[in-house]
Amino acid sequence: MAANTFGEIFRVTTYGESHGVGIGVVIDGCPSGLEIDDVFIRSELERRKPGQSRIVTQRHEAENFVIQSGVFDGKTTGAPISIFIPNTNQRSKDYDHLKEVFRPSHADYTYQAKYGNRDYNGGGRSSARETAARVAAGAIAKLFLNHFNIQIYGFVSQVGDIHLPTMVIDYTKIEDSIIRCPDAATTKQMVNLISSVRKSGDTIGGKISCHILNCPTGLGAPVFDKLHADLGKAMLSINAVKGFEIGSGFESVKMRGSEHNDLFYNQDGHILTRSNHSGGIQGGISNGMPITFNVAFKPVSTFMRSQETVDIHGNETTIDGKGRHDPCVVPRAVPIVEAMAALVLADHLLRQRTVRL
Amino acid sequence: MAANTFGEIFRVTTYGESHGVGIGVVIDGCPSGLEIDDVFIRSELERRKPGQSRIVTQRHEAENFVIQSGVFDGKTTGAPISIFIPNTNQRSKDYDHLKEVFRPSHADYTYQAKYGNRDYNGGGRSSARETAARVAAGAIAKLFLNHFNIQIYGFVSQVGDIHLPTMVIDYTKIEDSIIRCPDAATTKQMVNLISSVRKSGDTIGGKISCHILNCPTGLGAPVFDKLHADLGKAMLSINAVKGFEIGSGFESVKMRGSEHNDLFYNQDGHILTRSNHSGGIQGGISNGMPITFNVAFKPVSTFMRSQETVDIHGNETTIDGKGRHDPCVVPRAVPIVEAMAALVLADHLLRQRTVRL
Amino acid sequence: MAANTFGEIFRVTTYGESHGVGIGVVIDGCPSGLEIDDVFIRSELERRKPGQSRIVTQRHEAENFVIQSGVFDGKTTGAPISIFIPNTNQRSKDYDHLKEVFRPSHADYTYQAKYGNRDYNGGGRSSARETAARVAAGAIAKLFLNHFNIQIYGFVSQVGDIHLPTMVIDYTKIEDSIIRCPDAATTKQMVNLISSVRKSGDTIGGKISCHILNCPTGLGAPVFDKLHADLGKAMLSINAVKGFEIGSGFESVKMRGSEHNDLFYNQDGHILTRSNHSGGIQGGISNGMPITFNVAFKPVSTFMRSQETVDIHGNETTIDGKGRHDPCVVPRAVPIVEAMAALVLADHLLRQRTVRL
Amino acid sequence: MAANTFGEIFRVTTYGESHGVGIGVVIDGCPSGLEIDDVFIRSELERRKPGQSRIVTQRHEAENFVIQSGVFDGKTTGAPISIFIPNTNQRSKDYDHLKEVFRPSHADYTYQAKYGNRDYNGGGRSSARETAARVAAGAIAKLFLNHFNIQIYGFVSQVGDIHLPTMVIDYTKIEDSIIRCPDAATTKQMVNLISSVRKSGDTIGGKISCHILNCPTGLGAPVFDKLHADLGKAMLSINAVKGFEIGSGFESVKMRGSEHNDLFYNQDGHILTRSNHSGGIQGGISNGMPITFNVAFKPVSTFMRSQETVDIHGNETTIDGKGRHDPCVVPRAVPIVEAMAALVLADHLLRQRTVRL
Repeated sequence: MAANTFGEIFRVTTYGESHGVGIGVVIDGCPSGLEIDDVFIRSELERRKPGQSRIVTQRHEAENFVIQSGVFDGKTTGAPISIFIPNTNQRSKDYDHLKEVFRPSHADYTYQAKYGNRDYNGGGRSSARETAARVAAGAIAKLFLNHFNIQIYGFVSQVGDIHLPTMVIDYTKIEDSIIRCPDAATTKQMVNLISSVRKSGDTIGGKISCHILNCPTGLGAPVFDKLHADLGKAMLSINAVKGFEIGSGFESVKMRGSEHNDLFYNQDGHILTRSNHSGGIQGGISNGMPITFNVAFKPVSTFMRSQETVDIHGNETTIDGKGRHDPCVVPRAVPIVEAMAALVLADHLLRQRTVRL
Repeated sequence: MAANTFGEIFRVTTYGESHGVGIGVVIDGCPSGLEIDDVFIRSELERRKPGQSRIVTQRHEAENFVIQSGVFDGKTTGAPISIFIPNTNQRSKDYDHLKEVFRPSHADYTYQAKYGNRDYNGGGRSSARETAARVAAGAIAKLFLNHFNIQIYGFVSQVGDIHLPTMVIDYTKIEDSIIRCPDAATTKQMVNLISSVRKSGDTIGGKISCHILNCPTGLGAPVFDKLHADLGKAMLSINAVKGFEIGSGFESVKMRGSEHNDLFYNQDGHILTRSNHSGGIQGGISNGMPITFNVAFKPVSTFMRSQETVDIHGNETTIDGKGRHDPCVVPRAVPIVEAMAALVLADHLLRQRTVRL
Repeated sequence: MAANTFGEIFRVTTYGESHGVGIGVVIDGCPSGLEIDDVFIRSELERRKPGQSRIVTQRHEAENFVIQSGVFDGKTTGAPISIFIPNTNQRSKDYDHLKEVFRPSHADYTYQAKYGNRDYNGGGRSSARETAARVAAGAIAKLFLNHFNIQIYGFVSQVGDIHLPTMVIDYTKIEDSIIRCPDAATTKQMVNLISSVRKSGDTIGGKISCHILNCPTGLGAPVFDKLHADLGKAMLSINAVKGFEIGSGFESVKMRGSEHNDLFYNQDGHILTRSNHSGGIQGGISNGMPITFNVAFKPVSTFMRSQETVDIHGNETTIDGKGRHDPCVVPRAVPIVEAMAALVLADHLLRQRTVRL
Repeated sequence: MAANTFGEIFRVTTYGESHGVGIGVVIDGCPSGLEIDDVFIRSELERRKPGQSRIVTQRHEAENFVIQSGVFDGKTTGAPISIFIPNTNQRSKDYDHLKEVFRPSHADYTYQAKYGNRDYNGGGRSSARETAARVAAGAIAKLFLNHFNIQIYGFVSQVGDIHLPTMVIDYTKIEDSIIRCPDAATTKQMVNLISSVRKSGDTIGGKISCHILNCPTGLGAPVFDKLHADLGKAMLSINAVKGFEIGSGFESVKMRGSEHNDLFYNQDGHILTRSNHSGGIQGGISNGMPITFNVAFKPVSTFMRSQETVDIHGNETTIDGKGRHDPCVVPRAVPIVEAMAALVLADHLLRQRTVRL
């Protein structure tokens, strides 16, 4: 029931609204003895931060954070780790115009319908600011996964109709690109597209791909908690995500079994598959091949145009775009995708310790 | 941690292997006072049953079931409902050839890697036979949803590269089609394609779309348990599923915000949206519009050809296709998609009762 | 929310009513590779069975059971283990007199108040017959604990005002006693008391003590899931239990800190405590000393006398005792106490695998 | 698995150590629309606070708190409520003498055994300071229960061998007593006893009783989540608690069924029972009578005497009592008992909304 909690053993609970005193996360179930690297946590938060480049929102959010518990002498103790990220940008008066009107394709109307009231300042709990708490928790999960050499690489593979031409990725190039696309030529095209979309007062969708390397075999629980089912839920829980596919994904619809099956072979004692349409997961369990998935993000719902809508009394009205917003969400969403993937992996890695005598 | 359990309040636990004495499901949290209609449960199981038409596997499975608990004088009592479905087709000797070899793109290798042993008879726990238990539970959930007039319609919208040409659906025509595609011309094309694929000893993928009508506003929990995140996990937990998309899905990647946003208007006191790219869910919460999603199924991994693989000792070998299998899984997967959707909706409908003072 | 589910990793779900087709349990999370000993499961069920001696109910219940899933070639596979125990004694007509009347201190009235209906045959879901499913699951848990040499001994330490005079127990003598009291003289007194209570058409309460030997240090999760808190919940969930105490229990109320504290010492490299008022658990975590607790059982609520009560319409009426019932529940409750303790220990043993890097 | 989380729907997660920056709690699942009364929360924290009277520890802890989220315009929004309570008393140097030694009957040894390291400052996570977070969460739960007129009264019924002579309580007198015993004469005796115990450098145990009035019928889930099983776990999770009993509790062991059964009668249309040995709960479900239970607290483990123990290397040593500690924990534990009871009731009140069609 804990709608703000994710995971079974490595378990995170987030709280906080975009314009309150701050947001935070409690991580329960992180193993003891893990060295906590504050610099790494900060660097992950920086990757999600607004204002980091010219193609994202120019809104300013300083990402300070405080580890309030669970760490002693630089190492985790097994007690819950609380990380608090203060909001430094609480200008609630900005949002009075949203008190009585529902922004199209935002959560204003549905929160009101669900709860009977809502915090209308900057989206309140539905704001993507909540994802900063996920990134902080994901950084702890990544530190844990590092001990097992598991590596997670998210990158932008599509913006509008511009595709990354290859899925053979040089992961070292992702962060060289302000759009987090590991190909310089494609980056340039994407940046140009986003710039032109922004100038027209509009926004555009995008796709993030993710590769998880060195995942051991055996992770994922069959039946309901299949590894890709949990990855899918994790991704679909991120704001603006509309789709998830593992391995061959929607392409598999068109394929024959004889071309889709991944044939096993033995390479120096390691069982591998010749293709990887399975995306590293078979029967819901990792098979040791790279885990590969794609995540679709819709265009941001706030843009600089006037739109028809209704107010909280049901009267039809119009709303004008205001404020500073991302023209395309995917560059800043890459660390969020990675963080959620890391949480799923950390959880299943711990779960796997319990399944054999 | 309960990998074989799904749901928070309306909660199902399945068990059983394809060639044991039977499979079953325990439904905990179904409200008391619900009339149980055995005929409806049976009809749902029949929709999933092998051998129901010439385009599915000709394997025979009689779907008897016994309600063992939780129902008194024809109504639920609030106690757990146990439904047992005996296996009538336990021919374990058929499977000796699978004892030492891993079938490509099946769960043989990953189960062995995870657990250190496996039940190799007919796939054991990883067999799609487990989904019969889901369909039985989903039938109970549908009976509950009926009280609120919530209707769920799954249908086949793609097989190979043959698409249903429209998403304006006459739901009464779905069951007229042996492929569960609500358009006679498309059905014919799909049946021809499947027939030709089968004749070549191969299999093919497909896509199921699902529309949920009359879902009240307010269902879905923000942040991690967004309604479409739970639907996504539900679908991705079904065997052979490779992708899930809600509303505009992967198409949204190419769209501008100005075309994607769903503008609100007031029709006779009801707040509706002019388009439905949101797929009936905004901010993770239902907005009263139809919930629409797509599910991608890969081609069945068993077919009548010889394939390279390895055995449990790591030796490379080949395996020949044997037995009777579906050339395309989607016609029989429609009731499974609906069942999982029903479980998610029933759960969130009950959760919604707890969120307001 | 799963009210019929217990445990986090080693997780059991029970179902079934006393006069339906049978009862059962699904055990999810039992590690793979565990040898299942049917003879042991049967012997545990026999210890709980009615009719086993002259001081328990003479009602007959044959305890057959079927393992329906999760075991292959005699070993667990990691898949859920379903155990079904058919009811052989479904004489529903016996219970028509209970259709309209609430038995005092039974669950008739509260079930009706909670659910709006109830299965009045033999108590339905509230019958102690449900505990047979717990004993079956507990037997699996004990087989798992055997691998770690953890031993659980329940025994009767009090009936009415007759106490076991010592807590230095010869565990081999427990099963020699028809009352499961490891002292022959006390057994004789207890048997005499129970016989005389039965002759007077009455029932009497009792106390079960439990010692868990060889429990490793470190089990139990601090804060809410303290090991004794989970043991307490487990015991209090058994029908007729009114109290639970760990170690010094209610006696500690009268004690000084200087007499209560358990002083550590080092015996051949093992850290032990000179006394064990802690009952083997400190700060919610096992310290390696024997875990000791007591469980209070009220007198059985059904006896051979007429009592005042009300019917389902609120009219005052009287009800006469009928049927065959235990004059004292504790002899047959010993295996239930042990089973619930085994479930808690198995669960925490698996949880402990996840807490360190 | 969330060892620091309690509850299913009304769900709290606590974090923080006694000598870190602070402690806190996240409350997820509190219904929207609840007015939050800061003054009441503060008053509850004051009742638990050290230094409030001459019979408790004279250690100073200012109980400031910040509500960080989930409340808008004075009312809950349905989003998680985060409450942070800063530590104002972080004198870590006080605790260097505990770095290498295990205090008898504290959690030092078991935390080390479980996690391989520990925060030795003031007990770290095992400190009773964590219970302040529970009291804050319990205050929110009480505000919720107020809407249904459910009232919870904890009081001290025993210290050492001094008993409250009657269980007919004038609840208005509880807070008049510095020991929270609702009888002036007994209070005086208890205070004298505690004073003399303190002077001797020792501590003493005590018992808290709790009455819950106006609890509606139907709360509590049969089988594992019986209302008294959840209350029992809640109480046993409080530091220093060694026992829990509901209604007749351990006294029931000595009783006959004919004296124990609570006979129903009809008073002006309300079904009541003539006695209340059931303690307001039958079959795990509330029956509308007052819920009554007792909780045993051991004597505080820290006192002003030298004790034998071992250090972290296993060497035998001695440890001297230091610091300011409670001579008896029960006066300050009353609000903790009430808070945990309120959390259980709030959770089951919400659960009850989901059990009927």
